[in-house]
Amino acid sequence: MDFLKSGWFSELSPMWPGQCISLEVDEVLHREKSEFQDILVLKSKTYGTVLILDGVIQCTELDEFSYQEMISFLPITCHPNPQKVLIVGGGDGGVARELVKHPLVQSVVQCEIDERVVEVSKKFLPFMAKGFDDPKVKLHIGDGFEFIKNHPAEFDVIITDSSDPIGPAASLFQESYFKLLCQALKPGGIVCSQGENAWFHSHLISPLLKSCTELFPVVDYAYTCIPTYPGGQIGFILCSTNPATQFRNPIHQLSETECEKMQLRYYSSEMHSAAFVVPRFARKTLVDSPKSDEKETL
Amino acid sequence: MDFLKSGWFSELSPMWPGQCISLEVDEVLHREKSEFQDILVLKSKTYGTVLILDGVIQCTELDEFSYQEMISFLPITCHPNPQKVLIVGGGDGGVARELVKHPLVQSVVQCEIDERVVEVSKKFLPFMAKGFDDPKVKLHIGDGFEFIKNHPAEFDVIITDSSDPIGPAASLFQESYFKLLCQALKPGGIVCSQGENAWFHSHLISPLLKSCTELFPVVDYAYTCIPTYPGGQIGFILCSTNPATQFRNPIHQLSETECEKMQLRYYSSEMHSAAFVVPRFARKTLVDSPKSDEKETL
Repeated sequence: MDFLKSGWFSELSPMWPGQCISLEVDEVLHREKSEFQDILVLKSKTYGTVLILDGVIQCTELDEFSYQEMISFLPITCHPNPQKVLIVGGGDGGVARELVKHPLVQSVVQCEIDERVVEVSKKFLPFMAKGFDDPKVKLHIGDGFEFIKNHPAEFDVIITDSSDPIGPAASLFQESYFKLLCQALKPGGIVCSQGENAWFHSHLISPLLKSCTELFPVVDYAYTCIPTYPGGQIGFILCSTNPATQFRNPIHQLSETECEKMQLRYYSSEMHSAAFVVPRFARKTLVDSPKSDEKETL
Repeated sequence: MDFLKSGWFSELSPMWPGQCISLEVDEVLHREKSEFQDILVLKSKTYGTVLILDGVIQCTELDEFSYQEMISFLPITCHPNPQKVLIVGGGDGGVARELVKHPLVQSVVQCEIDERVVEVSKKFLPFMAKGFDDPKVKLHIGDGFEFIKNHPAEFDVIITDSSDPIGPAASLFQESYFKLLCQALKPGGIVCSQGENAWFHSHLISPLLKSCTELFPVVDYAYTCIPTYPGGQIGFILCSTNPATQFRNPIHQLSETECEKMQLRYYSSEMHSAAFVVPRFARKTLVDSPKSDEKETL
């Protein structure tokens, strides 16, 4: 579909065949082909500025916060002292923006493969890219897979904010990647990775969860609702090297005052726990993962 | 968009401007204009059979269960003895199918305005319309608003399974309708109505919740995730005439065995409670409703 002609951008992908979200376009703000992918920035009628990589919506101004807050706060509130956090991917800056809000986070290292995504975000999505301005954040441009290989036992939390497993992020959905993550963690470390959609992608999620349970003593799966992702939601794979971690019961319970201070619009401690409650069908299709901290409820 | 030409059905509506879900079409199974609305049945590539009224997706074979189970089990598990249940709308039969599963439900009266929706569903969506075959179910064809006027103090639970407040269902989103619901309930009765989407429709939901709190001592808001509804979710407005009702803590907790026996694919007692946890932004926009049973968490 030619969105410039019709006035609509339509998101077609073999990742979700037979279905498609379309957004009405007011203006094409930017388009380029970087070394790694097609980068497109639109001004949409309803969702504000939209960043699209290789034809897939990465974030929109209206609803991005639900993803950024959840992928950041789900892991860091479960770690007793998340001082040093690594972000793999996340070139728009949204995860960095969320992480630096937490008073215990002292340092955020980010490894993004595509410098152009960072530059484009700084220009067109400053409400997200402001994450890069914080003095706690140190950005490294390069391949995430290679980066973590060279940083053993260094991080308390590692967040993988990747695009789908087609294109530059494909390696970030493999067991070998999770092995490296495990090695890059300090003792007691936690990882949180973008985990696709339980309605469409159980064939991807289930084997990955199974691999994770062979690497980590605690593995769980949560999700967040977000209108502009396919099916209106996206999941997260959470793993901890600390057998005492209870992902559904975060160590750091945030008060209403703390949530307000951190300007959280989606995340709350109550939402944290609710995010791990998946429908019965998903519990069954993802059931190959036997080491949830509350096995009977996954 | 001419879906016959492009091979895709696209759902455009002033209810969600600037965005659109499209489904790839294998075959048009049926199309007619009834006295009340356009009725369209498609065979889609990914979601199986799809029922569309006035251009809006009502249900698809793949994901309908999340809506039907939640709109049915959220209210009936909160009523101590939900013997007699009224469904307003629900012409596809899905809600009736769910209600008759519950052992305490003895009688289901259904009032659907459009007989043709029932007939078309019986022919093309038998996996839903089988609800009408149960001897507990008595179907009345007529206007729901008029029907409840003439049945005071008769029902333990009333479920309004309506389309959007444009077209034949418009009257079912008005305060006057909720007043009639209140009168049609037996003492301690409960209502559950389709409640649109907290991301897009707070301007509709918030005043309606406010009206409800003037009619009922307990009012709350929950939602379910469903890929083929706009934004991937839809809400429910729940009201009880019994001040002791705690919607987030159902009286009837279903065991795993009971869920299996009732072939529930989405609903569980844990999912029930989680469905009331809304994002912080929604809690704020819907906050005009001050009489939730757990006010501080809505």
